[in-house]
Order: sequence, then C-alpha cells, then structure tokens
Amino acid sequence: MKLVSYLLSGNPSYGILTEQGIIDLTRRIGDKYSDLKALLSASDWLQIARNYVNEIADVKEEEIVYLPVIPNPNKILCVGMNYAEKRAEFHETNSAPTLFVRFPDSQTGHKTNVIKPLITNEFDYEGELAVIIGKGGFHIEEAEALQHVAGYSCYMDGSVRDWQHAWFTAGKNWPSTGAFGPCLATADSIPDPKVLTLKTYLNKQEVQHDSLNNLVHPIPELIAYISSFTALSPGDVILTGSPGGVGKKRNPPLFMKEGDCIEVEISHIGRLSNSVISEKR
Amino acid sequence: MKLVSYLLSGNPSYGILTEQGIIDLTRRIGDKYSDLKALLSASDWLQIARNYVNEIADVKEEEIVYLPVIPNPNKILCVGMNYAEKRAEFHETNSAPTLFVRFPDSQTGHKTNVIKPLITNEFDYEGELAVIIGKGGFHIEEAEALQHVAGYSCYMDGSVRDWQHAWFTAGKNWPSTGAFGPCLATADSIPDPKVLTLKTYLNKQEVQHDSLNNLVHPIPELIAYISSFTALSPGDVILTGSPGGVGKKRNPPLFMKEGDCIEVEISHIGRLSNSVISEKR
Repeated sequence: MKLVSYLLSGNPSYGILTEQGIIDLTRRIGDKYSDLKALLSASDWLQIARNYVNEIADVKEEEIVYLPVIPNPNKILCVGMNYAEKRAEFHETNSAPTLFVRFPDSQTGHKTNVIKPLITNEFDYEGELAVIIGKGGFHIEEAEALQHVAGYSCYMDGSVRDWQHAWFTAGKNWPSTGAFGPCLATADSIPDPKVLTLKTYLNKQEVQHDSLNNLVHPIPELIAYISSFTALSPGDVILTGSPGGVGKKRNPPLFMKEGDCIEVEISHIGRLSNSVISEKR
Repeated sequence: MKLVSYLLSGNPSYGILTEQGIIDLTRRIGDKYSDLKALLSASDWLQIARNYVNEIADVKEEEIVYLPVIPNPNKILCVGMNYAEKRAEFHETNSAPTLFVRFPDSQTGHKTNVIKPLITNEFDYEGELAVIIGKGGFHIEEAEALQHVAGYSCYMDGSVRDWQHAWFTAGKNWPSTGAFGPCLATADSIPDPKVLTLKTYLNKQEVQHDSLNNLVHPIPELIAYISSFTALSPGDVILTGSPGGVGKKRNPPLFMKEGDCIEVEISHIGRLSNSVISEKR
C-alpha cells in the first residue's frame, strides 16, 4: 500500500495512492486523524488504512499538489557517509554513524520545485532511502528495529556544499531543498529493505546507483543507535545516506542549476521527480 | 521583566517571575495564549505581559516545577566554538559559525535533574547564553537582528563528549541534558547583550567565566547567518556557545557525575541550577 500527503483545492490532505488515482482518507477519517503523522500514531494504523484500500479512487493525481510524505515530522535525522563509495569520496574514517538534522520546513513534495539558493554554485543532489517510523520507542533493540518502521520513501537531500562544513546544519536546511516522496510504501510490502535498489537521475542521466544492501550502517543498526540517545515517535524520518556519485566529487563537478530535473528512484517505492529553480528575492 | 514556564499541580503553565512570587498568566490569558511560545507569537506580547506585571503574585516559587523556558521551540540552533579560548582548546579553525541542532525533548528546567547517560564517563558542562526569538523572519539583516530577540536566558548545554564527533548530534540530544532557565529576561531590560557576564559553577567552584563581549560571532551576526538559510519563528532558541574551561580539556579532565550541582549564572538574568543524576534503566 502506498500513502501520500497532498494539497487538494489548497487544503492539506492524505490518502492511498493507487493506479486508478487516490483514495482520499481525509474525507473518511480526517476528523479522527488530521494528517498522515496522526494516522501513524494509531497502533492499528495499517489496518485502519486497509479498510479503505478497495474503495473507488475519488481524486485524480492531476488534481493534487504533492506535499512531503510527512510534512511535519517531529525529528528528521539524516545519516551521512553511509555507503563505502561515498565515504571514500569524502575521506571519512570515523566509524560512528554521521548524523545531522533537517528541519521540517526545508522539505518539499514530489513534482514540486526544489530551490537552488542564490548564494551557492554548489547545489548538489543526494538520492536517499527515507525510513518513516511507525511505532515510537527509546532504546530500541536492533533485532526489533524493523517492527518500528511504518514504511519507506525516496528522498533527495539537496545539499549546499559550500555551507555544509563538518557539522552539515547550514548546508542542509535551506527551504525546499529536501524533496520527500512520492509516497510512503508500507513496510509490509518491503519486509527486507536490503533488497531495494536506488538510482538518481539528473536530466534523465543516471548519476547514482547502489543497493541498500551496501549500507555501512544498516537500517536496524541506525534505529538502535539513534534511539539509544533520542526517542523516536510516529512520523519521524531517518534518511539513510547517499551512494557515491554526488556532483561535488565528480571531475568536473556536476551541480544542479535552474531548469534541471532531479529524480530519485527506488525499487518497490517509485520515482521522486523534481524541477530545480533558482531562489527569487 | 522575567517570564517563566512551569508545572503547577502537574499542569503546564507560564507567568511573570517577581521577588514576591509568580504572577500566573495561564489563568489570565491562557485561553488565548496556551503557552509562552504562543504568547511570543503575538506582535504585542511585551505589552500584553506588562498589563499584569503589577498584579499580586499568586503562585509561590516553591509550588512550581520549572519547565524549560520554552518547552517546545520549533528550532533550537546551537553554536559551537564561539569563544576564542574554546576554539583554542578544540583547535577549531573554520571561520563559519559551527551549528548543530538540539531536539526540544532533550531539555529540562531550572532546579530539575540533568541526567548523565549510563553509557558515558564524559558528561561535560557548557554554560551558555540562550537567545529567544520574538519576531520571526527570514533573511534578517544584522543591523535589525536584535529587534527579533524576545529575551535571554541561561543554558547548560550538557554534552556527551565521546558521542559528539564533528557533527555533534548524538552528543547533544540525550534526554534532560539541556537545562534551560530559570527565566526569559525580556530584551527591553538588556538592550546590549555584550555587557553580560557568564559564569559556570560545578559544585560551587567557578569553572567558566567570560564576557558576552567576547563572542567570536556576536548575536546579530548569528541571527543574520542562521536566518539566511532557515526561517526563525517566535520561541526559537539560539545557543550562543560556551567559553573555555569545559571539563574535557582540563588536565585532569573534570566531568559531571551523580550528585554534582551544575550552575550557569548570567548577569541581569539569574542563576540556572541543576543536580546531576545517573540514567536509570
């Protein structure tokens, strides 16, 4: 099952994405669960959503404006340097997971514009798998970690390289630089995320391609590590890092500019597609 | 004027701290402004609070449990390496402001316990000045930055040094490691924060002492820099960094342990005082 967040006639909504269109859940259960994060807070959220999965789609994809899959996570934890090739490119040797934070207002949805800040000529792409937490927890055991996952999505962790530094914050929090979508593919359809394959395309040219089996710190380890110091709650997002092939480390470098099309495709989930525009002031 | 957030009979509340006790604002304006962050969202918040400043205090300090001054900021941005002595101790040479993020649930209030994680023997103190944003903004000019400040407070940015790494996140987000209080001293009473003096005491012994005039990146520059990439909103918190003298760089090192008393005192604001306990599991 694939869940999406979107604007419909300007109103925030969420629903089930099907090949026939979207089954809007806001009109069905919005009084009880105001958004997708609120739905994930219900222990039986998957059953609740399944109750509607065979209904007739009532919204066409053309009618909506995609929002980030979770527009308002309490916490977005981003893992850096988590593929061997990327670590080699950036000469990273520290064995602990690299972790930084995105604020929710840096996000944007599928088929929207990502915004290249005026101040940089080093606006870089990073295709990533996003893990969305269902059941919260603190001190989660690695062996039980995948039971806390609601589902998975694609993420384009747009990076302002010249503002990134060793602490990442200023390079990763510009408005509309974190594209998140198109959908949350529920974890029941992806029992083992290691089988997933990630590809990033810049203007239809493949620029990143790796397997989620190659994560240096696999997803259960990341959930256990993060929840050892901070509690996770429904709707929290963990970005699992980007493969090698980013623009900064190419020769010559390959950065995003106005008019570009940037896409992140992950098997079993879908293809996140965004246009790049320049910041206007 | 000094504003505080607290629990009264278990209920979250906020009010004006006076020498005679607390003028509870929740019972006066709580229907309109549910908490201190909500009050700061009103453009005339200072006038609103002043309407009550001469009323009779109706709550004794002994009756309350202090909450973090702002329990629920949208953004907590922490500046590292912002005093010359601290930079020398940590061999920091990058000229951009060092920035990392705390999550709100890592905070605790004045006179509560800060919690030393079981996993570390390097739980370190950092006394800091906290800047609390009143009027929000994006691309704030340095010359106008102080107009966006609602007030100031003390902060004890408790740091798990062996989990800190170059990206800080895992060392700065353990529960009840960020003590924030006792109060928000309104900016009208501190027109120039450079005159402030900060002292940190561990078990009544002075361990840090510096002037806010010595910030490498002064407060207006920090507000301008941060708001160049992420919008600030009412109740957001900027921690301005800690002076030299932290425990990690002493010989021998001096870390916090159960039973310690850690205090941060800033002139014109007050003294934040917390006890250290060990994490229980």
